[in-house]
Amino acid sequence: MTTKLKVTVWGENVHEQKIPAVRAIYPLGMHECIASALRQDETLNVRTATLQEPQHGLSHEVLEDTDVLTWWGHCAHSQVEDAVVDRVHKRVLEGMGLLVLHSAHYSKIFKRLMGTTCSLTWREAGEKERLWVCNPGHPIVRGLGPYFEIPHEEMYGEPFAIPEPEETLLISWFEGGEVFRSGCCYRRGNGKIFYFRPGHETYPTYHQREVQTILRNAVHWLAPQGRWIDSCPNIPSDKAPEKITSSAAHHSSPGQADKS
Amino acid sequence: MTTKLKVTVWGENVHEQKIPAVRAIYPLGMHECIASALRQDETLNVRTATLQEPQHGLSHEVLEDTDVLTWWGHCAHSQVEDAVVDRVHKRVLEGMGLLVLHSAHYSKIFKRLMGTTCSLTWREAGEKERLWVCNPGHPIVRGLGPYFEIPHEEMYGEPFAIPEPEETLLISWFEGGEVFRSGCCYRRGNGKIFYFRPGHETYPTYHQREVQTILRNAVHWLAPQGRWIDSCPNIPSDKAPEKITSSAAHHSSPGQADKS
Amino acid sequence: MTTKLKVTVWGENVHEQKIPAVRAIYPLGMHECIASALRQDETLNVRTATLQEPQHGLSHEVLEDTDVLTWWGHCAHSQVEDAVVDRVHKRVLEGMGLLVLHSAHYSKIFKRLMGTTCSLTWREAGEKERLWVCNPGHPIVRGLGPYFEIPHEEMYGEPFAIPEPEETLLISWFEGGEVFRSGCCYRRGNGKIFYFRPGHETYPTYHQREVQTILRNAVHWLAPQGRWIDSCPNIPSDKAPEKITSSAAHHSSPGQADKS
Amino acid sequence: MTTKLKVTVWGENVHEQKIPAVRAIYPLGMHECIASALRQDETLNVRTATLQEPQHGLSHEVLEDTDVLTWWGHCAHSQVEDAVVDRVHKRVLEGMGLLVLHSAHYSKIFKRLMGTTCSLTWREAGEKERLWVCNPGHPIVRGLGPYFEIPHEEMYGEPFAIPEPEETLLISWFEGGEVFRSGCCYRRGNGKIFYFRPGHETYPTYHQREVQTILRNAVHWLAPQGRWIDSCPNIPSDKAPEKITSSAAHHSSPGQADKS
Repeated sequence: MTTKLKVTVWGENVHEQKIPAVRAIYPLGMHECIASALRQDETLNVRTATLQEPQHGLSHEVLEDTDVLTWWGHCAHSQVEDAVVDRVHKRVLEGMGLLVLHSAHYSKIFKRLMGTTCSLTWREAGEKERLWVCNPGHPIVRGLGPYFEIPHEEMYGEPFAIPEPEETLLISWFEGGEVFRSGCCYRRGNGKIFYFRPGHETYPTYHQREVQTILRNAVHWLAPQGRWIDSCPNIPSDKAPEKITSSAAHHSSPGQADKS
Repeated sequence: MTTKLKVTVWGENVHEQKIPAVRAIYPLGMHECIASALRQDETLNVRTATLQEPQHGLSHEVLEDTDVLTWWGHCAHSQVEDAVVDRVHKRVLEGMGLLVLHSAHYSKIFKRLMGTTCSLTWREAGEKERLWVCNPGHPIVRGLGPYFEIPHEEMYGEPFAIPEPEETLLISWFEGGEVFRSGCCYRRGNGKIFYFRPGHETYPTYHQREVQTILRNAVHWLAPQGRWIDSCPNIPSDKAPEKITSSAAHHSSPGQADKS
Repeated sequence: MTTKLKVTVWGENVHEQKIPAVRAIYPLGMHECIASALRQDETLNVRTATLQEPQHGLSHEVLEDTDVLTWWGHCAHSQVEDAVVDRVHKRVLEGMGLLVLHSAHYSKIFKRLMGTTCSLTWREAGEKERLWVCNPGHPIVRGLGPYFEIPHEEMYGEPFAIPEPEETLLISWFEGGEVFRSGCCYRRGNGKIFYFRPGHETYPTYHQREVQTILRNAVHWLAPQGRWIDSCPNIPSDKAPEKITSSAAHHSSPGQADKS
Repeated sequence: MTTKLKVTVWGENVHEQKIPAVRAIYPLGMHECIASALRQDETLNVRTATLQEPQHGLSHEVLEDTDVLTWWGHCAHSQVEDAVVDRVHKRVLEGMGLLVLHSAHYSKIFKRLMGTTCSLTWREAGEKERLWVCNPGHPIVRGLGPYFEIPHEEMYGEPFAIPEPEETLLISWFEGGEVFRSGCCYRRGNGKIFYFRPGHETYPTYHQREVQTILRNAVHWLAPQGRWIDSCPNIPSDKAPEKITSSAAHHSSPGQADKS
C-alpha cells in the first residue's frame, strides 16, 4: 500500500569488465552488489544503470522516476556526458537524494555540487580501516555500534577539499596512520547528499554487513522531502505584495536576458 | 612599510557603453566607481579589469597578483570564457577573496562555487530597500548603524537558491513587500566569498556612502589568510606515518588515471 | 497499527488567566488552541502540560513518553524550575524534538540550548507580518505558498542573537519596516529544534490556518530519529581497538572526578 | 605603535600543586608554560589568572581588558563560580575570543556556550597522538606540515557531543585506534571560540613546539573583530522605520517584564 522509495544504482562498470581480480569479487558488477544489498529492504524499489547504456541509463524519464540515486565511478569520470550531469544536478536541487560512493568524490556531479576540488591523499595498500560514528543517534548509523572495521581498504586521508559538511557523521582511522571524514551530509537546493568513503573495487567492501546497513539507511535518509522546481520569476509591480508605484528608470533591460 | 592588499575590480562594462541612462550615473563605468570607493582606503592597491580586455583582464599573472577580486556582471555572463572562470575558481580555492556583487549571483563563477542555481525572484520598480544588520559586531558592517536604506533599487526576493550561508549578515526589506538575504558569507577551499546584493546599474547605488563602507570592509574581511595549493597526492606505503605491510591486490590501476 | 507520534504541548498559561483580552481569544488557554490544531492530524497523540502543574507537568515519565515538545512562554520564564529545564535539555540531546514558539526565544531551555542571549528588537503595534519561505521544498512549509501574512502581530526585529541557524527557513517582513529570521532549524545532540516566531498572546495567530499547518509540519520534522544516551566512558587500555602498552604516568587522577 | 593583543591565560592550577609528577613538568604551573609560549610573540600582551585568586582572577576589570581568554581546567570545574562564568560568557558574546584547552571541554563556560553535554570517550595510556590538518591554509595551522605527533597523550575519542563545528580544522589519530575532532571553530554572538584538544597535565604537551605554534596562531585568529553590546530594545511605534498606526490590543504587558 505504501509507495516504495525508488532507487537507481549507477555504476561505472569498467574495472569489473577489464580486471579479473575485480570481476572475481563482483561477478555481476559492483552496481549489482550494491543493488542487491538495497533489495534486502522491501520498502525499496531498486534498479541499476551504467555508463555503457545510452545516456548512461539516466534518461529524463528514469531520473524523474528516481527518488534516490547512488553513484560509484573511478576511472571514467571524464566519459560521463555533461548533459547527463546537468540533468542529475537539476534533479538533486529539486529534491532527489544522492549517495556518493568512494572514488566518486572525483565525479563530475559531486564536484559540481560541492564547488571545490574534492581532492584528498590516498594510498592503496590494503590496510585496515576503522570507521567511528560521531552521532550514534543518526538514522544513517542505525544498527551499528560505536565503530566498525573493514579489513582491507584503500586509504583516503585529509585534507579532503570539500565545503565544511553540514554533519560529519563518520571519521576513519587508517592502519597506516591517516584519518578521513568518511561520512559527510549536505543539503543543496531541496536535495540531500551523503558522501560515504569506503568501496575500493579490489576489496569486497560492498559485501560487508555494516557497509550494506549504511547503504540502506542512507537511502532512506536521502528520501526526497518535497519538490522545488526552481526558476527566477519576475514579480511585476502590480503583483507586489505591497502597493508600490514604480519609479524604475525603465530601459529595455538587456540584463534580464540571462535570467529568462 | 606594510604590504597593501591587492584588489582587482572586475566589471562587465556593457550597460555603461550601451545605455545612456547608465552612463549618466557611471560615466567611467561601474567598475571605476567601485574602484574609486576602494581607493579611499590607502591600505588597498586597486586595479580594474573588464570583459572587453584580452582574457577579460584576468590573466594568470593578474590573478596571481590579486588578493581580493570583486565581480559585477549582469547581461553578459555567458560571454565570460570558461578558461577564465577555471582560473578564478582555482585562485579562490587557494585563498583569494571574492566579492560577488548584485546580479553576479548569476555569474558563472558564483554558480560554480555554490553548486546551486542561485536563482531568486526580482522586480525592477525603483523601490526602497532597507538593509538590516544581523551581527552588529561583524567587521563587514563596521561603521554602520542597525540598518541603512537605498532609496531606489531593483528588488531581489526569496527564495534565493544558494547553499545555507555560513553567516547571513544582512537581510533586506523591500517597499514592495519582499525580503532577501543580502549579505552572505562563505568559505570554499581556503578562500572567503561574500555576496552583497545591492547595485542595479540604473541607480546610483555604488555612489552611496554606506554601500561604499561595506565594499571597503568586505575587501578587508576577504583578505587571504594563507595559501593552499591543492593536489591529490599518493602516499606510498613506505611513506605512511605508521609502518604497514601492503596487502593490496595490486593491479595497474586505471582508476588512478583521473587522479594524476 | 503505526505508532502515533507523541506530542506534549507546554503552555505558560498566565496571560490567559489574568488578561480578559487574551482569554477572549484563547478561552481554554493558548496551549489548548495549539493542541487542538495538532489534533487535526490523526497520526499525532497530543497532550498538554502547563506551568501551574506539579513539575510544570513535565515529570520524568511524561518526558520519557514525549517525542516532540512544544514550548510557549512569555512572562514567567524565571518561574520554570531549573530541574525541569535540566530534564528537558537532557531529553532534547537524546533525540526529543523541540518546537520553540514566539516569546520562548527567551525561555531558559532555548537559551541553554543556544548558548547565546537570544535577544532581539521588538514592538507591539499590531502591525502586519508577512513570512517568506526560503526553501519551498522543505517539509515544514509543505502546503504553503511563497509567503503568508498575519494581519496583526507583535514585531520582532534583527539582530536576533542566536548561533547561525543550520537552516533559515522563514524570514518575516514587518509593516513597520523590520525583518526577522522567523523559522530557524537546529540540531543539538541527537535532537532537532525549530524556532517559529509568530504567536503573540493578544492576537489570534494560533487560530490561523497557515500557522497551524506549520505547527503540524514542524512536529513531524522534529520527530526523533533515534536515541543517543550520552555518557563519558573510559576505555581501558585492554579494551582499546588497537593493542597498546600503557605508558601512562599513572596517578590517582583527580581530574576524572568530574567525568564520572 | 600598534596596540598589542591582550591575552589572559586562565589556569585551574590544582594538579600542579598536588601532584609531584605534574609539578615536575610544569614547575610554575601549566598556565605559566602556556603564557610563556604566548610571550614569544611580541605582539601579545599576556597575563595569567588562576582559580585560587579572588574572583578566580577574572574580575570585571580584567575581562574588560582582555581580548582573548585561554582556559584550562580539569578536576575543579565545579569550583568555578557561576558569577564568573556569567561574566566570561557575556564577554565572549560581545566579542572576546576564547581558547578552550583539553579537559576544559567539560568546563562550565564551554558547556554553556555549546548548549550540549560536550562528553567524549577517554583513556589515559600515554599513547601516541597524531593530529591531521583538514585545511592547510587556515591561519591557526600556519607553520605546520600536514600533521604533527605528540608522543604521549591521553586519548579522547568520538562521539564528541558538541554542536557541529563551523570548521573542523584538526582530527586526531590515536595509537589505540580512536579518532577525535581536535580543532573546532565556532562563533557565538560576536565572539570566536576555538577548542584545541591536547594538553593532559601528566605530559609535557605544552612544551612542544607545534602545540605552542597553534596556541599563538589561535590567539591571533580569536582576536575580537568588533564589539556588540547586546540588549533587547523596544522600538516604539513612532520610531518604526516605516510609518505605522498602532493597532495593538494594548494591555499593561506583563510579558515584557522578562525583557526589560
